[in-house]
Parts: sequence; structure tokens; C-alpha cells
Amino acid sequence: MTDTLSPAVQICRDLIRCPSVTPAEGGALSTLENLLAGAGFDVSRVTFTDEDTPDVENLFATIGTGKPHFVFAGHTDVVPVGDEAAWTHGPFDGTIADGMLHGRGTADMKGGVAAFAAAALDYVKAHPDGIPGQISFLITGDEEGPAINGTVKLLEWAKEQGHEFDACIVGEPTNPDALGDAIKVGRRGSLTGTIKVNGTQGHVAYQHLADNPVPGMLKLLSAVSEVELDKGNERFQPSNLEITTVDVGNTATNVIPAHVMAKFNIRFNDQWSVKSLSEHVTKLLSDAAPEGLDWSIEYAKEATDSFLTHDEALIQTLSNSIKTVTGRTPELSTGGGTSDARFIKNYCAVVEFGLVGQTMHKVDEHVAVADIEQLADIYFRFLQDYFQA
Amino acid sequence: MTDTLSPAVQICRDLIRCPSVTPAEGGALSTLENLLAGAGFDVSRVTFTDEDTPDVENLFATIGTGKPHFVFAGHTDVVPVGDEAAWTHGPFDGTIADGMLHGRGTADMKGGVAAFAAAALDYVKAHPDGIPGQISFLITGDEEGPAINGTVKLLEWAKEQGHEFDACIVGEPTNPDALGDAIKVGRRGSLTGTIKVNGTQGHVAYQHLADNPVPGMLKLLSAVSEVELDKGNERFQPSNLEITTVDVGNTATNVIPAHVMAKFNIRFNDQWSVKSLSEHVTKLLSDAAPEGLDWSIEYAKEATDSFLTHDEALIQTLSNSIKTVTGRTPELSTGGGTSDARFIKNYCAVVEFGLVGQTMHKVDEHVAVADIEQLADIYFRFLQDYFQA
Ligand SMILES: [Zn+2]
Ligand SMILES: [Zn+2]
Repeated sequence: MTDTLSPAVQICRDLIRCPSVTPAEGGALSTLENLLAGAGFDVSRVTFTDEDTPDVENLFATIGTGKPHFVFAGHTDVVPVGDEAAWTHGPFDGTIADGMLHGRGTADMKGGVAAFAAAALDYVKAHPDGIPGQISFLITGDEEGPAINGTVKLLEWAKEQGHEFDACIVGEPTNPDALGDAIKVGRRGSLTGTIKVNGTQGHVAYQHLADNPVPGMLKLLSAVSEVELDKGNERFQPSNLEITTVDVGNTATNVIPAHVMAKFNIRFNDQWSVKSLSEHVTKLLSDAAPEGLDWSIEYAKEATDSFLTHDEALIQTLSNSIKTVTGRTPELSTGGGTSDARFIKNYCAVVEFGLVGQTMHKVDEHVAVADIEQLADIYFRFLQDYFQA
Repeated sequence: MTDTLSPAVQICRDLIRCPSVTPAEGGALSTLENLLAGAGFDVSRVTFTDEDTPDVENLFATIGTGKPHFVFAGHTDVVPVGDEAAWTHGPFDGTIADGMLHGRGTADMKGGVAAFAAAALDYVKAHPDGIPGQISFLITGDEEGPAINGTVKLLEWAKEQGHEFDACIVGEPTNPDALGDAIKVGRRGSLTGTIKVNGTQGHVAYQHLADNPVPGMLKLLSAVSEVELDKGNERFQPSNLEITTVDVGNTATNVIPAHVMAKFNIRFNDQWSVKSLSEHVTKLLSDAAPEGLDWSIEYAKEATDSFLTHDEALIQTLSNSIKTVTGRTPELSTGGGTSDARFIKNYCAVVEFGLVGQTMHKVDEHVAVADIEQLADIYFRFLQDYFQA
């Protein structure tokens, strides 16, 4: 049966069989290195290290010279399999059944990496005298993990090597239901805050000697829970705040606790910056804080602003390829979670388009074999049109 | 120096030197047994056992026959010493310095036990032909612990032995500042509730696919936090609800949690019963619950109703003794925490009076030597008046 598989599906299956749960390389980058080096790419394996986080291997591959310089970005690391016994097919077996390729990472995002690799190899083969520009792969092994030793450092590294990118597609699974549903043309920003309230511990029977911090915290949280931050706009859905945890950790039913902590995360649109939003939330909390309450708010420094890609040619070229192959006109979306596009946007125009994301991070993650083949076709047509322009 | 100590202080020091941290007997009950048996008391040592809790030794001692039957109730177990290095004097050394007897349990409540033992021995000695009634000791080693193998079972056991009590003093430290401040003539009830709210876990970036249980919990808790349950009355302070914990336990800042749990404890007065109060709180919560919220409230079965002692003669006799010895007219209090009086009240009239509680359960627990002596004097005068009446 192997003989009848298209190159994109074969590459994907080879990658699935590499158990590359973050931060393990699992053979996935080596598989890609062999493939790309064999086709004439100049491949670099770069390992980054940092305090308190595992070393992570990354891969940069490039072919051609001059402008335009297109880069495909992705990751070969995958999230853990969870309850392995619950999987119908082994998560690292790469089983094909009923037209579906099963395995951890098929959707997120070895399928996208494989489809682009197949498309790039085809495109290179179609230009035996050299491609009209430069194509690179920016592949990290630390997207699903702390993302410290991954794309951020790989982008810096590539810049130091003299690489300047003009446009990027990130191969994350952007389609909610069917291939061609949506291109991500931007991302909401993300802001995490930690609220602490301090009181005075004591016995519940002597409450006048204690100072329970929980009522104060309730007032603070009630001021931001379900708050309408804005109404959204044409390109972005409304900003949204979720309280992700509230914790006291008091196991004694007769003790008034001394401390309570809560965290929230906001996904926000281009009507806010990290600065304006954190100031707004701090004001909401301050206005709600009862007089004399001992409280604090701290925002995580990993906060990111929203962004929107303004390269209409990039969006249009990709959109046309999708329409040609799938018959669908993709929605230009800005919803959903963050990806490494938030780092790449500081270097070049970036959009995201990959497979259908329905089963990503779940048990029995799988994608349609036909989707992988169509995605390779979309990427190939994109490269043709992009470099002809 | 030992020669100059009064019997009550000597007994207290002997008890302090027994490291009887719950559930350890530590020699404390044996010390008491030797003392009381030597004075003619009929002493029983009774060990109770139960599932999932350590065996605990208890002591019952009695002398005399007929009515009235007075019982002194107390405990010889003590709470742990905490940071032993922080103690000025060894917690089990029984050091006397600057007129203070130091050690774990001096206030709570080996001092009370020792004072009553000294008083009872004096009273028995003063009646060589027999006392006009019956005096018993009901001493448990499980007051500071789970209180399962202690007073509850000892009361049942005594009843099976044919003992019927007419009145009881519990020797807990009832005085906030000075000996003679307060007699406890009742106790507020205690009701603990656990609220749970269930939602649907999900990614913060896809909040429409998740259902955060925290906003619903905030509405429930806001409805009961700082609620005025009543205004109190002549004998009791207002009922009071404290939220003792709220917990989600979610460490992922990008995940909307599925569950949140909160607990509260209410100390309530005689305007409520466990039943009426739990129904009232359930109604407050139900009225505040947003439509469709998946929530529950469960009340701990250890709830206790408030009680008030109506034996005015008992209260007056004790009050007069206190006035005579200390010059103070004790306040008749119903505040503060629970004690074994909540069980004894089902058998006979019960009040509580002991030493000054300021240092109880703390590092450097201590009481004034003079207070132990005065307390023994108060108990002795009480016995005289009580049996003369
Ligand atoms: Zn991904
Ligand atoms: Zn006690």
C-alpha cells in the first residue's frame, strides 16, 4: 500500500512515527533534514538552551537566493498523547484507515509540515535551473512547550545569518470544519493577570480578630468577570476575559484564611494594546476595591498585542490557491489561540493556513488523507503564483 | 522551690510534663488517676476505637452517691507545639518564671483540670464522712483532635454505667483578658457548607466552546458573603458567615476550568436551627444562581445547633464564687468557638469557666501561677455552695 501514497502523505506518516512530544526531537527533524538536504536545501540544526527549561532542537533549511524570500514556519513537536489506551490506533503508528491518517500531530501540525515539504520539493524539481527567489523552512521543536527555545530564538538566529524574509505562511490547522474554511490573518493579543488579596488569618468563631480576604476578592473579580471590554469590529471578535483560577487552599473549615489568589486571561483585539488594556483592567479593579483592602494586580510579562497582516497580495495569492483547489473562499479570521505567528509578524508579513483542526490535541487525532494531498496542492500553487508575481 | 507551690500548681506542672499531644495519653491520665484514686475516687480508664481515627484513652472518676451529681469536664490532650525552637521555655518543661507557669496546655486546659482536681481533693478532705452528693471527672484525650473517641462516647459510657448528671462545668479557658471576665453559658451553632459549580473545560481562545464555572460561583458567593443573617440578641452576637476557601486549582493560564469549589462556615445564634439556617442559605444561593447554572450545595453532617444553659442557679452559684475570689462579675458569654459543652448539654445543665485563654494554641502558652490558685479557690467555693444549696 505504501507505493500508492502521495509524497505528502508518506512524509506525514514518517513524521507521525517519530514520537516527538515536546521537548523530544524524536527523529522528526532528522527525517525532515534528510528529505530537504537530498533535494538541495542547505539545512541547519540549531539547539537552544535556557535556564529552567529543556534544551530544544530546531531546524532551518533554505534554497535559492535573492528576492522574494518566502518562509514556511511550523513545528514538529506534539502534545502528549493523554490516555494512550483510549486511542483506536497507536498514536505514533501512522495508521491509515477509511481514508484517514491517524496519529498524534497529524493535524497539529506534521500534516502541514509534510504538505509544504512535498510542495517545495515539487516546486524545486520544476525549476532545475534554480528558483526565482528563496524558500526557507523555519521549524521548531518547542511550539507546544514553553516556546522559549524555539521560534523566537530561531528568528534571531536566522537574522544573524543574514536572512530577511518577505512573507511567511504558518502551517497551523486553521480550518474549523473543512479544508479551505479559513486563513488566519491576525491574532488577538493575550494578557494574563494575577490578583492577590491579603487578610488576617483567624478562627471562624472570632471573626472580629481576623480579616477574611475572600469578600474583597469577590468584589474585585465581580468587577471584571463577564465585563464587556468592547464590541469587536470587522476583523476581530470582541475582547474576552476569563477568570482561569481562584485559590485559597484552606483545608480547615474553622479557619478564616489569610490569602486568596486569582488569575485571569484576556484575549483582546486591536482596540487595545497590552498597556491600555492592563491600565483599564487595573482601573476596574481599583474602582471595585473596598476601602482599605490589601490587594495587588500583576500582569505576566509574556503579554502580546494583537496584530493584523496588511500584505493583501500575500492573502490574495493564498486565497486564490485555496479557491482553485477546494472551491472554497476562505474566511479571513483573527479568532482562536496564539501561534508562533505572533513572533514572526515582527520580521515579515505572516498568515496561517493548514489542515482541519477538529481533532488537534485530542485522543484519536487524525486528518483526511485527501486533505493532506489537497493542502500540498494549495501550497504548490501558492509558490508558483507567489514567485511569478 | 517545689515545696512552696500550691497543690493546684503542682498538679498542673506534673500534667504539663506529660507530652499528651492528641491522641497521645503521654502519662497525663495516669497522673490524674493516681491522684484521684489516692483520694478515694473510683477511677475508670476507658479507651475508645473507631474507623479511620486513632484509639483514644479517656478517664472517668467519681466519688460519693446520690443527688446532686456534679461533673467536671475537661481534656488533657493538647495541640502540637508548632515551632519548638521558638519557645522561650521547653513546651513540656513546666518552667515557672516571673510568676508564670509556661508550657503547652497550661491555659487549654491542664490548668483548669489541675485547679478542679485540687479543689475536689480539698472538698473531699473537708468531708471525711462523705460528700453530700456525687462529684465526677469526665476527662477526655480527644478534644483537640477529631473528637470522635472522646466526650461523646464517654458520656454514653457513663450513662450506661448508670450515671445521671445534674450540672457540669467545663474547664476551658473562657476569660479573654483576666480571670473572672466571662462564664460561657451557651455556644453558637456551627454549620459548614460546600458549594460546587461545574462548567465545561476549554481553551481561553475558544471561550464559546467552553463554559467557565467561575462567574456563576462569584454570583453564588456574593449572595452569601457578608450577608446579614440576623442582628443578634441579648444573649447572642449576630450570626456570621465566613467563606473559608475557594478553589479551582488550575495552573494553566490558557485553560478555562471545568470546576470550582467553595466552603463556608456559619456560627449562628438561637434565632436559627441547623435546618432553618441551611434552608435559608440554600434559598439565598438559589435566588442568586444564574439560570442553567450547574451547581450544588452540601452541608456537613457535623453541624450543631446553638444552645443556652437555663440553669440560673448553676450560673449564679459559679458567678458568686468568681465575684468573691476575683472581685469581678463575669460576663455571661455565648461567643467564641465550640467545645465539648455542645455534647454535654444533651445530658445536663452546662457552663464553661477556666483560665485566661490569650496564649492558648500559641507558642509560649502560659498562665499566671496566681490564676491557677485563684481558679482552684473559685472551684472549691463553687462546690461548697453548690452542695449546700
Ligand atoms: Zn500547532
Ligand atoms: Zn480546650
